[in-house]
Amino acid sequence: MTTRSARQSHSRNDLRSFFDARSVAVIGTFREGWFGGSVVIKSLMNAGYKGQIYPINPTYKEVQGLRVYPAVSDVKEMIDLAIIMINTQTVPQVLRECAEKGMKAAIVVVDGFAERDQVGLLLQREIVDIAERTGIRIIGPNTAGIVNTANGLNISPYDAGYYKLKEGSVAICAQTGMTNPQAFPYHDFQFGVSKICDFGNNCDVDESDLMEYLEEDPKTSVISMYLESITNGRRFLEVVSRVAPRKPILLLKSGKTQEGARASASHTGSLAVDDHIFQAACNQAGALRLERFNDLFEMPKMFAYQPLPEGNRMGIITITGGVGVLSIDEGAKYGLVVSKLSPRTRDSLNDIFPNLGEIPVDIGPPAAAIKDFPSRYPEIFNAVMADENVDCLFNIIWVDHVGRSVEEYETVYKLIRDKYRKPIATWLYGPNPCVVAELRQRMEELNFPVFSGPETSIRALGMALRFRNLTQRN
Amino acid sequence: MTTRSARQSHSRNDLRSFFDARSVAVIGTFREGWFGGSVVIKSLMNAGYKGQIYPINPTYKEVQGLRVYPAVSDVKEMIDLAIIMINTQTVPQVLRECAEKGMKAAIVVVDGFAERDQVGLLLQREIVDIAERTGIRIIGPNTAGIVNTANGLNISPYDAGYYKLKEGSVAICAQTGMTNPQAFPYHDFQFGVSKICDFGNNCDVDESDLMEYLEEDPKTSVISMYLESITNGRRFLEVVSRVAPRKPILLLKSGKTQEGARASASHTGSLAVDDHIFQAACNQAGALRLERFNDLFEMPKMFAYQPLPEGNRMGIITITGGVGVLSIDEGAKYGLVVSKLSPRTRDSLNDIFPNLGEIPVDIGPPAAAIKDFPSRYPEIFNAVMADENVDCLFNIIWVDHVGRSVEEYETVYKLIRDKYRKPIATWLYGPNPCVVAELRQRMEELNFPVFSGPETSIRALGMALRFRNLTQRN
Repeated sequence: MTTRSARQSHSRNDLRSFFDARSVAVIGTFREGWFGGSVVIKSLMNAGYKGQIYPINPTYKEVQGLRVYPAVSDVKEMIDLAIIMINTQTVPQVLRECAEKGMKAAIVVVDGFAERDQVGLLLQREIVDIAERTGIRIIGPNTAGIVNTANGLNISPYDAGYYKLKEGSVAICAQTGMTNPQAFPYHDFQFGVSKICDFGNNCDVDESDLMEYLEEDPKTSVISMYLESITNGRRFLEVVSRVAPRKPILLLKSGKTQEGARASASHTGSLAVDDHIFQAACNQAGALRLERFNDLFEMPKMFAYQPLPEGNRMGIITITGGVGVLSIDEGAKYGLVVSKLSPRTRDSLNDIFPNLGEIPVDIGPPAAAIKDFPSRYPEIFNAVMADENVDCLFNIIWVDHVGRSVEEYETVYKLIRDKYRKPIATWLYGPNPCVVAELRQRMEELNFPVFSGPETSIRALGMALRFRNLTQRN
Repeated sequence: MTTRSARQSHSRNDLRSFFDARSVAVIGTFREGWFGGSVVIKSLMNAGYKGQIYPINPTYKEVQGLRVYPAVSDVKEMIDLAIIMINTQTVPQVLRECAEKGMKAAIVVVDGFAERDQVGLLLQREIVDIAERTGIRIIGPNTAGIVNTANGLNISPYDAGYYKLKEGSVAICAQTGMTNPQAFPYHDFQFGVSKICDFGNNCDVDESDLMEYLEEDPKTSVISMYLESITNGRRFLEVVSRVAPRKPILLLKSGKTQEGARASASHTGSLAVDDHIFQAACNQAGALRLERFNDLFEMPKMFAYQPLPEGNRMGIITITGGVGVLSIDEGAKYGLVVSKLSPRTRDSLNDIFPNLGEIPVDIGPPAAAIKDFPSRYPEIFNAVMADENVDCLFNIIWVDHVGRSVEEYETVYKLIRDKYRKPIATWLYGPNPCVVAELRQRMEELNFPVFSGPETSIRALGMALRFRNLTQRN
């Protein structure tokens, strides 16, 4: 593997051939269906990709209005990137042709390699060998592709019937296609994406290459990763140490238990690492470890859309006392403390209702007792946000079935939008999922992230605090 | 407190005066709004309560077509239950009148007692004293009420604009109103409820009383609890030990951290317990500890609607390999193992597609490669469910934006509905939240619970296994 390490210093440039490709060869069959070469072309077109698309197949003449070439060698122009979706056995031959054509990047979508059996393992070794000898880089095999929202390069082989992606600053890299656009409606979730990459079996381009590329990518400010295994532990920690204080690295790592590690090893052939050692190393290097799969879709929003907290003092406004205690529990895990409000704020809140000036600020009793409560809410909210003892806020909102207060809550968020440099995590609940979804969307359009539960909301604030401490480390 | 312990053996009967009340006095103001006495009456009427309702207030004559009495003493008939929603200071006097009238049960909805200040604490002591001297039992103060779906007794002081509740076997008891009907659409979630009780400051009726009542309640088969504190640790563990092997007790306990415990103590005046000791005692007694607030709405479904696993061998059918490894990690926490399929099943699955006979059964590759895959899916699903090495199943389903496969998936679940005595946890995802919600509802109407994430699905299977082991303990 000496060739590979010699090439590592070039990896950032190498990955530009993938994400900034100005021309793409789609090599595969083009029959209609929800998977395959036709879908890739459709994905590119739907995403507004402006580069050249060259469908490659010896038996087609035209597909979706594009001329089909029998082989890459039949294309006169230079091609940056190959998408390979042919029979597993034919991949090495086609990859060689791509390298001979002078291409620098290939995404091998098809599966049936090291994850399948011995024959597949040998084939995978063969393509790695071609990469090392020719300099072509490989993402995959066994991948659902990549996305660059800046240029419409959406290489999705699965047609989910949904073609929207919101441009933003979150990069998502995973050893699975589960985080690719066919799986979740990023756009409707108000989740802005810069890059997506499923590196599949990561036979060549791996998690460290991606982090190095994203480190310098001006469109990316948050890196979210799902890993089953680490290709090269030392390099991984080196790269994390360098990148983590600049851009938050949110990391979900499976294979935590011996059982999971064994399954993961048989999946990708990588070595299992004791999770406690890995956790300690990650903490040291500065990766922010995620707890659950859904965190991949929730935690990045805090970093993408909210300022960092200046300190660890959390304010809580709640319509239910019970969740206040849960929140304090969860906050303590991350060093978030619930401090007293300043005397001035306490007095002004206590003037509105007895004991309102305590944290958690429990608006339940005044909401039930004061007739014009909705008109007092902005005042309460502002007082807590303005308090010098509050660095960040967890806000709990209840909306009734008909959504009577949706406009009012939206208005409050609009009013304070650019007023304070303090992050807010919001949790909404109520008996009507549609009303909850409506208010959620309005708040997220204002760049206030809404989370799926109280603990998740607090975790997002806690991770923001951890990252803020990382940035202060040097 | 000797009076109280002398009364404990009667607690089951005492609580029937609450949940089986044939007449209710609603004591409060009746002005229109989203909180108060009018809302309680509306809640009772909407829930189809057939008992007598007596509104009590000296200044009203009629409310919602019902005659209003100046005081409980003006009602000639016996009244079982009082709902008290008057000024905090007046509560002792009114409680005394209720006791004099011979009533056995009072729900004190209003707040401003021990949770507020010293004055409130003294008032709370006063009402406890009245209860002890007269024998009237108190739920609350500071409670959002109780529900019995069997007789329409829905004492909800908050009008959420949503009046549906699905009858079922899950009892929900909490030291918060957050789990009462105004908060979540239990009906739309296909979440069948037997009883709900917010015991608020639990000055008299507490968590142990409730468990004892629910132990003998034929409508309840699952007990879900949220506690900030334990009134009497020894009695609590005694009751849990007795009830837990008969009916699963799902317990969310806050105050885990020192910080949370301190907040909880100042909230209810109860003693903090070291969480490690509490956890060990709970495990010993057989309580199934929940991890997150949302678990309260997810975990009970597994017990209410699915059989228990006969053993710890988990099958996984997935459309994505990545989540398979996560699932194995999570399963290991609960002693769930991923065993090999029997040779017969493996062969039959491998005949459909290479390597399909491994667990996790990864349908991703055949779904992409086989043209008539949807017609093969039922066969695959059946083969895994029928395998003698599979005790329970985690099924991961992807639905596209237009929901092409919704009918097919529903059909498969219909087909196997009464065929196997093995629990199934399902996780759905896809780019269209409405389609996902639609399929979720169809599946839950067939009594197959759908969970919000992969780890949550596995946790539900893990908890079912723990309960099954409890039932086998003696």
